[in-house]
Amino acid sequence: MKILIVGGTGTIGSRIASHYANNHEVIIAGSNSGEINVDIEDSSSIENMFQKVGNVDAVVATTGKSKWAPFDEISEKEFYFGLRNKLMGQVNLIRIGRSYIKQGGSITLTTGILGDDPVPGTTSAAMVNGAIHSFVKALVLELGGHPRINVVCPGLVEDSAEILAHYFPGYNPVPMHKVVNAYVRSIEGTRTGEIIRVY
Amino acid sequence: MKILIVGGTGTIGSRIASHYANNHEVIIAGSNSGEINVDIEDSSSIENMFQKVGNVDAVVATTGKSKWAPFDEISEKEFYFGLRNKLMGQVNLIRIGRSYIKQGGSITLTTGILGDDPVPGTTSAAMVNGAIHSFVKALVLELGGHPRINVVCPGLVEDSAEILAHYFPGYNPVPMHKVVNAYVRSIEGTRTGEIIRVY
Repeated sequence: MKILIVGGTGTIGSRIASHYANNHEVIIAGSNSGEINVDIEDSSSIENMFQKVGNVDAVVATTGKSKWAPFDEISEKEFYFGLRNKLMGQVNLIRIGRSYIKQGGSITLTTGILGDDPVPGTTSAAMVNGAIHSFVKALVLELGGHPRINVVCPGLVEDSAEILAHYFPGYNPVPMHKVVNAYVRSIEGTRTGEIIRVY
Repeated sequence: MKILIVGGTGTIGSRIASHYANNHEVIIAGSNSGEINVDIEDSSSIENMFQKVGNVDAVVATTGKSKWAPFDEISEKEFYFGLRNKLMGQVNLIRIGRSYIKQGGSITLTTGILGDDPVPGTTSAAMVNGAIHSFVKALVLELGGHPRINVVCPGLVEDSAEILAHYFPGYNPVPMHKVVNAYVRSIEGTRTGEIIRVY
Protein backbone atom coordinates (compact mmCIF):
# COMPACT_ATOMS: atom_id res chain seq x y z
CA MET A 1 0.00 0.00 0.00
CA LYS A 2 0.90 3.63 -0.47
CA ILE A 3 0.09 5.48 2.74
CA LEU A 4 0.25 9.24 3.29
CA ILE A 5 0.51 10.21 6.96
CA VAL A 6 -0.17 13.88 7.58
CA GLY A 7 1.44 14.54 10.94
CA GLY A 8 3.64 11.47 10.53
CA THR A 9 6.42 12.78 12.74
CA GLY A 10 4.16 13.35 15.75
CA THR A 11 3.51 11.18 18.82
CA ILE A 12 0.93 8.95 17.16
CA GLY A 13 1.86 9.46 13.51
CA SER A 14 5.44 8.28 14.00
CA ARG A 15 4.19 5.03 15.56
CA ILE A 16 1.91 4.40 12.59
CA ALA A 17 4.76 5.21 10.21
CA SER A 18 7.05 2.69 11.98
CA HIS A 19 4.36 0.03 11.84
CA TYR A 20 4.02 0.30 8.06
CA ALA A 21 7.57 1.36 7.10
CA ASN A 22 9.02 -2.06 6.30
CA ASN A 23 6.37 -3.47 4.00
CA HIS A 24 4.62 -0.46 2.55
CA GLU A 25 5.35 2.86 0.93
CA VAL A 26 4.91 5.46 3.66
CA ILE A 27 4.97 9.16 2.84
CA ILE A 28 5.15 11.57 5.73
CA ALA A 29 3.81 15.09 5.53
CA GLY A 30 4.05 17.72 8.22
CA SER A 31 3.85 21.44 8.82
CA ASN A 32 7.63 21.74 9.11
CA SER A 33 8.91 18.18 9.12
CA GLY A 34 8.55 15.04 7.04
CA GLU A 35 9.10 14.58 3.32
CA ILE A 36 6.40 17.00 2.25
CA ASN A 37 5.44 20.26 3.88
CA VAL A 38 1.76 21.03 4.18
CA ASP A 39 -0.20 23.75 5.94
CA ILE A 40 -3.53 22.08 6.73
CA GLU A 41 -5.16 25.47 7.27
CA ASP A 42 -4.57 26.28 3.62
CA SER A 43 -6.56 24.38 0.96
CA SER A 44 -4.08 25.21 -1.78
CA SER A 45 -1.25 23.74 0.29
CA ILE A 46 -3.30 20.53 0.71
CA GLU A 47 -4.01 20.47 -3.03
CA ASN A 48 -0.27 20.87 -3.75
CA MET A 49 0.55 17.99 -1.41
CA PHE A 50 -1.84 15.62 -3.17
CA GLN A 51 -0.59 16.68 -6.58
CA LYS A 52 2.94 15.79 -5.51
CA VAL A 53 1.98 12.52 -3.82
CA GLY A 54 -0.55 11.29 -6.39
CA ASN A 55 -2.98 8.46 -5.75
CA VAL A 56 -2.74 6.59 -2.47
CA ASP A 57 -4.42 3.71 -0.70
CA ALA A 58 -4.69 5.49 2.60
CA VAL A 59 -4.49 8.95 4.06
CA VAL A 60 -4.02 9.19 7.79
CA ALA A 61 -4.33 12.52 9.57
CA THR A 62 -2.61 12.60 12.95
CA THR A 63 -2.45 16.34 12.92
CA GLY A 64 -4.43 19.33 14.06
CA LYS A 65 -4.10 21.74 16.93
CA SER A 66 -6.45 23.61 19.18
CA LYS A 67 -5.90 25.96 22.08
CA TRP A 68 -6.05 24.50 25.57
CA ALA A 69 -6.94 27.19 28.09
CA PRO A 70 -9.58 28.01 30.70
CA PHE A 71 -12.84 29.27 29.16
CA ASP A 72 -12.29 32.57 31.00
CA GLU A 73 -9.05 33.10 29.14
CA ILE A 74 -9.63 31.68 25.69
CA SER A 75 -10.41 34.32 23.08
CA GLU A 76 -12.83 34.13 20.18
CA LYS A 77 -9.79 34.13 17.89
CA GLU A 78 -8.33 31.15 19.73
CA PHE A 79 -11.58 29.20 19.27
CA TYR A 80 -11.32 29.93 15.54
CA PHE A 81 -7.74 28.64 15.54
CA GLY A 82 -8.96 25.15 16.49
CA LEU A 83 -11.81 25.36 13.98
CA ARG A 84 -9.43 26.34 11.17
CA ASN A 85 -6.66 23.95 12.09
CA LYS A 86 -7.85 20.65 13.59
CA LEU A 87 -11.44 20.77 12.31
CA MET A 88 -11.41 22.35 8.85
CA GLY A 89 -7.85 21.13 8.25
CA GLN A 90 -9.08 17.55 8.50
CA VAL A 91 -12.33 18.32 6.64
CA ASN A 92 -10.29 19.81 3.81
CA LEU A 93 -8.04 16.75 3.71
CA ILE A 94 -11.23 14.85 2.83
CA ARG A 95 -12.69 17.50 0.50
CA ILE A 96 -9.51 17.65 -1.52
CA GLY A 97 -7.92 14.26 -0.89
CA ARG A 98 -10.84 11.98 -1.62
CA SER A 99 -10.32 12.07 -5.37
CA TYR A 100 -6.78 10.76 -4.82
CA ILE A 101 -7.87 7.63 -2.93
CA LYS A 102 -7.69 4.31 -4.75
CA GLN A 103 -10.66 1.94 -4.79
CA GLY A 104 -11.20 0.41 -1.34
CA GLY A 105 -8.96 3.03 0.19
CA SER A 106 -9.53 5.15 3.24
CA ILE A 107 -9.03 8.44 4.96
CA THR A 108 -8.59 8.20 8.72
CA LEU A 109 -8.93 11.28 10.89
CA THR A 110 -7.91 11.75 14.51
CA THR A 111 -9.93 13.30 17.31
CA GLY A 112 -9.59 12.37 20.97
CA ILE A 113 -11.37 11.49 24.20
CA LEU A 114 -12.13 15.14 25.03
CA GLY A 115 -15.13 15.16 22.68
CA ASP A 116 -16.86 12.57 24.87
CA ASP A 117 -15.12 13.01 28.18
CA PRO A 118 -13.48 16.42 28.53
CA VAL A 119 -11.39 17.92 31.32
CA PRO A 120 -11.22 21.56 32.44
CA GLY A 121 -9.47 23.83 29.96
CA THR A 122 -10.50 21.92 26.86
CA THR A 123 -13.65 23.61 25.55
CA SER A 124 -12.00 24.27 22.20
CA ALA A 125 -10.54 20.79 21.80
CA ALA A 126 -13.82 19.17 22.86
CA MET A 127 -15.74 21.33 20.36
CA VAL A 128 -13.48 20.31 17.50
CA ASN A 129 -13.60 16.60 18.33
CA GLY A 130 -17.38 16.55 18.66
CA ALA A 131 -17.67 18.44 15.38
CA ILE A 132 -15.58 15.85 13.54
CA HIS A 133 -17.53 12.91 14.96
CA SER A 134 -20.88 14.28 13.82
CA PHE A 135 -19.48 15.52 10.50
CA VAL A 136 -18.19 12.05 9.60
CA LYS A 137 -21.51 10.40 10.50
CA ALA A 138 -23.23 12.76 8.05
CA LEU A 139 -20.55 12.53 5.39
CA VAL A 140 -20.58 8.76 4.91
CA LEU A 141 -24.30 8.91 4.09
CA GLU A 142 -23.29 10.63 0.85
CA LEU A 143 -20.12 8.83 -0.24
CA GLY A 144 -21.48 5.42 -1.17
CA GLY A 145 -18.59 3.73 0.59
CA HIS A 146 -15.76 5.41 -1.35
CA PRO A 147 -13.47 6.48 0.02
CA ARG A 148 -13.95 4.91 3.41
CA ILE A 149 -13.77 7.53 6.16
CA ASN A 150 -13.10 6.63 9.78
CA VAL A 151 -12.02 8.49 12.88
CA VAL A 152 -9.65 7.27 15.55
CA CYS A 153 -10.53 8.79 18.89
CA PRO A 154 -7.73 7.97 21.33
CA GLY A 155 -7.66 8.52 25.06
CA LEU A 156 -4.55 9.71 26.84
CA VAL A 157 -1.83 7.88 24.91
CA GLU A 158 1.11 6.30 26.67
CA ASP A 159 3.80 8.23 24.81
CA SER A 160 2.45 11.57 25.97
CA ALA A 161 1.02 10.39 29.30
CA GLU A 162 3.83 11.81 31.36
CA ILE A 163 3.60 15.38 30.11
CA LEU A 164 -0.22 15.43 29.99
CA ALA A 165 -1.01 13.42 33.15
CA HIS A 166 -1.84 16.49 35.24
CA TYR A 167 -4.75 17.27 32.90
CA PHE A 168 -6.15 13.74 33.16
CA PRO A 169 -6.49 12.56 36.76
CA GLY A 170 -7.66 8.94 36.79
CA TYR A 171 -7.52 8.49 33.03
CA ASN A 172 -5.81 5.27 31.96
CA PRO A 173 -2.98 5.74 29.47
CA VAL A 174 -3.58 3.73 26.31
CA PRO A 175 -0.69 1.52 25.10
CA MET A 176 0.66 2.73 21.75
CA HIS A 177 0.14 -0.64 20.04
CA LYS A 178 -3.59 -0.36 20.76
CA VAL A 179 -3.65 3.14 19.31
CA VAL A 180 -1.79 1.98 16.19
CA ASN A 181 -4.19 -0.95 15.85
CA ALA A 182 -7.14 1.45 15.62
CA TYR A 183 -5.56 3.02 12.53
CA VAL A 184 -4.77 -0.44 11.13
CA ARG A 185 -8.43 -1.37 11.60
CA SER A 186 -9.44 1.66 9.56
CA ILE A 187 -6.75 1.28 6.87
CA GLU A 188 -7.00 -2.48 6.34
CA GLY A 189 -10.62 -3.13 7.31
CA THR A 190 -13.69 -2.53 5.19
CA ARG A 191 -15.79 -0.35 7.48
CA THR A 192 -16.62 3.26 6.92
CA GLY A 193 -18.10 5.94 9.15
CA GLU A 194 -16.72 4.36 12.30
CA ILE A 195 -15.60 6.40 15.30
CA ILE A 196 -12.96 4.03 16.69
CA ARG A 197 -12.65 4.86 20.35
CA VAL A 198 -9.44 3.64 22.05
CA TYR A 199 -9.77 4.43 25.74
CA MET B 1 -38.57 35.78 35.38
CA LYS B 2 -36.92 37.95 32.78
CA ILE B 3 -36.22 35.80 29.73
CA LEU B 4 -34.28 36.84 26.64
CA ILE B 5 -35.04 34.71 23.60
CA VAL B 6 -32.56 35.17 20.78
CA GLY B 7 -34.41 33.95 17.73
CA GLY B 8 -37.72 34.45 19.49
CA THR B 9 -39.70 35.01 16.30
CA GLY B 10 -38.65 31.69 14.74
CA THR B 11 -40.43 28.33 14.60
CA ILE B 12 -39.35 27.18 18.06
CA GLY B 13 -38.58 30.54 19.65
CA SER B 14 -42.07 31.90 19.06
CA ARG B 15 -43.59 28.89 20.84
CA ILE B 16 -41.34 29.43 23.86
CA ALA B 17 -42.20 33.14 23.83
CA SER B 18 -45.94 32.33 23.82
CA HIS B 19 -45.51 29.89 26.67
CA TYR B 20 -43.90 32.49 28.93
CA ALA B 21 -45.57 35.68 27.63
CA ASN B 22 -48.43 35.92 30.13
CA ASN B 23 -46.60 35.46 33.39
CA HIS B 24 -43.05 36.55 32.68
CA GLU B 25 -41.08 39.33 31.07
CA VAL B 26 -40.07 38.02 27.67
CA ILE B 27 -37.65 39.96 25.48
CA ILE B 28 -37.28 38.85 21.90
CA ALA B 29 -34.12 39.44 19.90
CA GLY B 30 -33.58 38.58 16.27
CA SER B 31 -31.40 39.37 13.29
CA ASN B 32 -34.09 41.52 11.72
CA SER B 33 -37.16 41.00 13.87
CA GLY B 34 -38.11 41.16 17.54
CA GLU B 35 -37.62 44.01 19.96
CA ILE B 36 -33.84 44.03 19.74
CA ASN B 37 -31.71 43.44 16.69
CA VAL B 38 -28.63 41.29 17.12
CA ASP B 39 -26.12 39.82 14.71
CA ILE B 40 -24.90 36.68 16.47
CA GLU B 41 -21.85 36.52 14.21
CA ASP B 42 -20.64 39.80 15.70
CA SER B 43 -19.47 39.83 19.33
CA SER B 44 -19.93 43.58 19.64
CA SER B 45 -23.55 43.25 18.53
CA ILE B 46 -24.09 40.60 21.22
CA GLU B 47 -22.43 42.84 23.81
CA ASN B 48 -24.71 45.74 22.78
CA MET B 49 -27.77 43.52 23.14
CA PHE B 50 -26.88 42.51 26.69
CA GLN B 51 -26.07 46.10 27.66
CA LYS B 52 -29.55 47.12 26.52
CA VAL B 53 -31.34 44.16 28.13
CA GLY B 54 -29.39 44.06 31.40
CA ASN B 55 -29.48 41.15 33.81
CA VAL B 56 -31.82 38.27 33.05
CA ASP B 57 -32.87 34.97 34.56
CA ALA B 58 -32.64 33.06 31.33
CA VAL B 59 -31.20 33.37 27.88
CA VAL B 60 -32.58 31.04 25.25
CA ALA B 61 -30.93 30.76 21.85
CA THR B 62 -33.22 29.39 19.17
CA THR B 63 -31.08 30.82 16.45
CA GLY B 64 -28.22 29.90 14.20
CA LYS B 65 -27.93 28.88 10.59
CA SER B 66 -25.80 26.51 8.61
CA LYS B 67 -25.70 25.61 4.94
CA TRP B 68 -27.58 22.47 3.88
CA ALA B 69 -26.10 21.10 0.67
CA PRO B 70 -24.50 17.93 -0.69
CA PHE B 71 -20.86 17.54 0.39
CA ASP B 72 -19.88 17.72 -3.29
CA GLU B 73 -21.36 21.18 -3.55
CA ILE B 74 -20.68 22.81 -0.22
CA SER B 75 -17.70 25.16 -0.25
CA GLU B 76 -15.11 25.73 2.45
CA LYS B 77 -16.63 29.19 2.89
CA GLU B 78 -20.08 27.69 3.44
CA PHE B 79 -18.70 25.39 6.16
CA TYR B 80 -17.28 28.48 7.85
CA PHE B 81 -20.68 30.17 7.63
CA GLY B 82 -22.16 27.49 9.94
CA LEU B 83 -19.15 27.69 12.26
CA ARG B 84 -19.42 31.48 12.53
CA ASN B 85 -23.18 31.60 12.80
CA LYS B 86 -24.76 28.67 14.63
CA LEU B 87 -21.63 27.47 16.47
CA MET B 88 -19.61 30.54 17.46
CA GLY B 89 -22.78 32.67 17.59
CA GLN B 90 -24.08 30.49 20.40
CA VAL B 91 -20.64 30.15 22.02
CA ASN B 92 -20.35 33.94 22.05
CA LEU B 93 -23.81 34.27 23.61
CA ILE B 94 -22.31 32.33 26.52
CA ARG B 95 -18.92 34.07 26.52
CA ILE B 96 -20.54 37.48 26.65
CA GLY B 97 -23.92 36.75 28.19
CA ARG B 98 -22.92 34.73 31.21
CA SER B 99 -22.05 37.77 33.31
CA TYR B 100 -25.63 39.04 32.79
CA ILE B 101 -27.28 35.90 34.20
CA LYS B 102 -28.82 36.15 37.66
CA GLN B 103 -28.04 33.56 40.35
CA GLY B 104 -29.63 30.21 39.48
CA GLY B 105 -30.20 31.37 35.94
CA SER B 106 -29.49 29.59 32.72
CA ILE B 107 -28.43 29.83 29.12
CA THR B 108 -30.09 27.29 26.84
CA LEU B 109 -28.69 26.62 23.38
CA THR B 110 -30.32 24.80 20.48
CA THR B 111 -28.79 22.12 18.28
CA GLY B 112 -30.77 19.36 16.57
CA ILE B 113 -30.99 15.67 15.77
CA LEU B 114 -28.52 15.92 12.88
CA GLY B 115 -25.56 15.83 15.27
CA ASP B 116 -26.52 12.29 16.33
CA ASP B 117 -28.60 11.10 13.42
CA PRO B 118 -27.89 13.05 10.22
CA VAL B 119 -29.40 12.82 6.76
CA PRO B 120 -27.70 13.41 3.39
CA GLY B 121 -26.85 17.05 2.73
CA THR B 122 -26.25 17.97 6.36
CA THR B 123 -22.50 17.65 6.94
CA SER B 124 -22.26 21.28 8.02
CA ALA B 125 -25.29 21.19 10.31
CA ALA B 126 -24.16 17.90 11.86
CA MET B 127 -20.68 19.31 12.47
CA VAL B 128 -22.05 22.36 14.24
CA ASN B 129 -24.45 20.38 16.44
CA GLY B 130 -21.78 17.87 17.47
CA ALA B 131 -19.41 20.72 18.23
CA ILE B 132 -21.91 22.38 20.56
CA HIS B 133 -22.69 19.15 22.43
CA SER B 134 -19.03 18.46 23.21
CA PHE B 135 -18.27 22.11 23.92
CA VAL B 136 -21.01 22.29 26.56
CA LYS B 137 -19.84 19.08 28.25
CA ALA B 138 -16.38 20.65 28.60
CA LEU B 139 -17.65 24.09 29.56
CA VAL B 140 -19.73 23.07 32.58
CA LEU B 141 -16.64 21.49 34.16
CA GLU B 142 -15.33 25.03 34.62
CA LEU B 143 -18.38 27.09 35.58
CA GLY B 144 -19.11 25.71 39.05
CA GLY B 145 -22.82 25.57 38.24
CA HIS B 146 -23.29 29.26 37.35
CA PRO B 147 -24.78 30.03 35.00
CA ARG B 148 -26.42 26.74 34.18
CA ILE B 149 -25.88 25.81 30.54
CA ASN B 150 -28.05 23.26 28.74
CA VAL B 151 -28.71 22.35 25.14
CA VAL B 152 -32.05 21.41 23.61
CA CYS B 153 -31.54 19.01 20.73
CA PRO B 154 -34.87 18.65 18.92
CA GLY B 155 -35.77 16.21 16.20
CA LEU B 156 -37.92 17.20 13.25
CA VAL B 157 -40.39 19.57 14.92
CA GLU B 158 -44.07 19.49 14.04
CA ASP B 159 -44.31 23.12 12.94
CA SER B 160 -41.69 22.66 10.24
CA ALA B 161 -42.39 18.99 9.49
CA GLU B 162 -44.28 19.69 6.29
CA ILE B 163 -41.57 21.73 4.58
CA LEU B 164 -38.70 19.56 5.83
CA ALA B 165 -40.31 16.09 5.57
CA HIS B 166 -38.52 15.19 2.34
CA TYR B 167 -35.18 15.41 4.14
CA PHE B 168 -36.32 13.14 6.96
CA PRO B 169 -37.93 9.93 5.70
CA GLY B 170 -39.23 7.91 8.63
CA TYR B 171 -38.43 10.55 11.25
CA ASN B 172 -41.28 11.18 13.68
CA PRO B 173 -42.29 14.83 13.99
CA VAL B 174 -42.04 16.04 17.58
CA PRO B 175 -45.10 17.85 19.01
CA MET B 176 -44.31 21.49 19.78
CA HIS B 177 -45.38 21.22 23.43
CA LYS B 178 -42.71 18.58 23.97
CA VAL B 179 -40.11 20.83 22.37
CA VAL B 180 -41.19 23.77 24.54
CA ASN B 181 -41.06 21.54 27.61
CA ALA B 182 -37.38 20.80 26.95
CA TYR B 183 -36.63 24.52 27.24
CA VAL B 184 -38.84 24.76 30.35
CA ARG B 185 -36.83 21.91 31.89
CA SER B 186 -33.64 23.86 31.29
CA ILE B 187 -35.00 27.26 32.37
CA GLU B 188 -36.88 26.17 35.48
CA GLY B 189 -34.91 23.07 36.49
CA THR B 190 -31.63 22.97 38.34
CA ARG B 191 -29.49 20.84 36.04
CA THR B 192 -26.55 22.02 34.03
CA GLY B 193 -24.56 20.49 31.20
CA GLU B 194 -27.52 18.49 29.96
CA ILE B 195 -28.10 17.74 26.29
CA ILE B 196 -31.89 17.47 26.29
CA ARG B 197 -32.81 15.31 23.33
CA VAL B 198 -36.42 15.57 22.15
CA TYR B 199 -36.89 13.01 19.40
